Amino acid sequence: MTHEIAVIPGDGIGQEVTPAAVEVLEALEIEFEFREGEAGDAVKEETGEALPQETYDLAASADATLFGAAGETAADVILPLREAVDSFVNVRPAKAYPGVDAVRPETDLVFLRENTEGVYSGHEDRLTDDVATLTRVVTESASRQLAEFACEYVADNDYDGFTTVHKANVMRATDGLFRDTVAEVADENDIETDEVLMDAFATHVCLEPDQFDVVVCPNLAGDVLSDLAAGLVGGLGLLPSANVGPDRALFEPVHGTAPDIAGKSVANPAATILSAAMLVEYLGYDEEGAAIREAVETTLEEGPRTSDLGGDASTGGVTEAIVDRL
Amino acid sequence: MTHEIAVIPGDGIGQEVTPAAVEVLEALEIEFEFREGEAGDAVKEETGEALPQETYDLAASADATLFGAAGETAADVILPLREAVDSFVNVRPAKAYPGVDAVRPETDLVFLRENTEGVYSGHEDRLTDDVATLTRVVTESASRQLAEFACEYVADNDYDGFTTVHKANVMRATDGLFRDTVAEVADENDIETDEVLMDAFATHVCLEPDQFDVVVCPNLAGDVLSDLAAGLVGGLGLLPSANVGPDRALFEPVHGTAPDIAGKSVANPAATILSAAMLVEYLGYDEEGAAIREAVETTLEEGPRTSDLGGDASTGGVTEAIVDRL
Ligand SMILES: CC(C)[C@H](C(=O)O)[C@@H](O)C(=O)O
Ligand SMILES: CC(C)[C@H](C(=O)O)[C@@H](O)C(=O)O
Repeated sequence: MTHEIAVIPGDGIGQEVTPAAVEVLEALEIEFEFREGEAGDAVKEETGEALPQETYDLAASADATLFGAAGETAADVILPLREAVDSFVNVRPAKAYPGVDAVRPETDLVFLRENTEGVYSGHEDRLTDDVATLTRVVTESASRQLAEFACEYVADNDYDGFTTVHKANVMRATDGLFRDTVAEVADENDIETDEVLMDAFATHVCLEPDQFDVVVCPNLAGDVLSDLAAGLVGGLGLLPSANVGPDRALFEPVHGTAPDIAGKSVANPAATILSAAMLVEYLGYDEEGAAIREAVETTLEEGPRTSDLGGDASTGGVTEAIVDRL
Repeated sequence: MTHEIAVIPGDGIGQEVTPAAVEVLEALEIEFEFREGEAGDAVKEETGEALPQETYDLAASADATLFGAAGETAADVILPLREAVDSFVNVRPAKAYPGVDAVRPETDLVFLRENTEGVYSGHEDRLTDDVATLTRVVTESASRQLAEFACEYVADNDYDGFTTVHKANVMRATDGLFRDTVAEVADENDIETDEVLMDAFATHVCLEPDQFDVVVCPNLAGDVLSDLAAGLVGGLGLLPSANVGPDRALFEPVHGTAPDIAGKSVANPAATILSAAMLVEYLGYDEEGAAIREAVETTLEEGPRTSDLGGDASTGGVTEAIVDRL
């Protein structure tokens, strides 16, 4: 069986780390058909559109998509792409690796972020010169779908349960619905949960990151708190992510285009290669996924390393080392 | 001139740390008239109301209010109290102190949090069984008032400028209005600013907290990011805050009621005493404010210390040491 993979490198270091991840995928004994699509600042400059319809369609029909990064146009690219794959959950592991300097080396978290609504609803109005509004939307159905995924995730990966993060003391109707629905689904599935307010979570994850494992949260909370966790593990450079839908999914490093180092072949490909590991696991190849992960971890620990981790290897040098270790 | 101060201890350790701060205020050569008000879980149990009208009126008419903490009813107490003093900005310094274990000892930040709108607007609806909405409100007028305060704050305290934190790449109309208004006011006042997205700030403040000084942000961003900074400096136990309005202000520690240690006279009074320092500075007594701050800092460094900082002193013991050092 051949898996059709959309590959959308985007801008900046996306152009370097995405091919690196494809190289790793090609080294596996899985049949892929790669189809490249354009998106980002450069295409917008050329065509006026950050996300051409062909690229959207490519992601909407491929079995899985690998995305690199986009610059100024990031929101115009990634939000529609998440929609293209009907993604209801953004899976964001944030793990500190041996050999990598971390503010909190004991951090090992997985965020399951609601990926369709909240303040990302897109409904904004400038009512008067003085007043702008945004309609934050929370639905029981999206909360339920996320929670069902979380229960499966916890069971499949042998976690004890999950923590729900919300701000229902202030957003009583919306986050209240989110919190209650998630708790109900967990209960139906005999999964243990506890809950923490979003602000309290921000404090506690700094003080005792090992208090948490799987964190289930609304869209913006997931955005901010997973980036906070990225800070605790030493930066965005190592964080992969998966935008999962019912029939397809999109994988992307959490980092951006890194304009300061773009074009120099020195970008760290680890986050995108770890995203590729999530991609093959999503397609059902658990062993291959584990093999990629292990090869990346060994390389982080033993080198070669890119400059962000104090080394002087190139993107290609690190990629080659990872492929050799597969 | 006598200053009328409303004192609202609230629940839990609020009952212990608020009198401690009053003791410090009484040791100063300033004439205060203290008037106590009730609020919180206990009053609610008794009377059905977490914030009795008398207490609201007290805060709305006093020159300044000192508030301790409230339990389950926190939102029902503190949000109306902020309204009672017409507070448009929440000033939240987050500073690591010598002698106190901190995740990031170089942290020294001041958050200026918008204190009236955003997702705190209170406009929520359950539209259908499935759908709940919240109207996030951002106004030019509130953004302008906050920014004008920020410019004055920067000038008065000899900062180089401030950083605006927002999520205008997603919340284009609302945070766009916030960002543009703040930038405009800064420009009018010749104050330097830069801007960072809320998620990126969460990463960078962990990696390099000394990159930031004064942070200006919308309501929820301020809530979460100042609590994140609290994690970096070693916990909520040391963070004071001021809710400032045009004619009056309310001062409160950022911590909660700490039910696990409440009633044992072991709570750390530092955050509330530092809030009292902000209170006297607000009333124009800069020297007295600096004296309190110095006495607290010396006590944090040399002891006696409460158990949260590894000591075995009581709330009263620490308070006495601070008073002695004034
Ligand atoms: C680019 C932006 C719209 C996006 C988001 O807010 O989701 C990014 O921060 C992310 O987390 O992938
Ligand atoms: C209790 C709660 C409503 C409050 C807030 O969200 O503002 C608290 O977290 C704070 O920061 O003072």
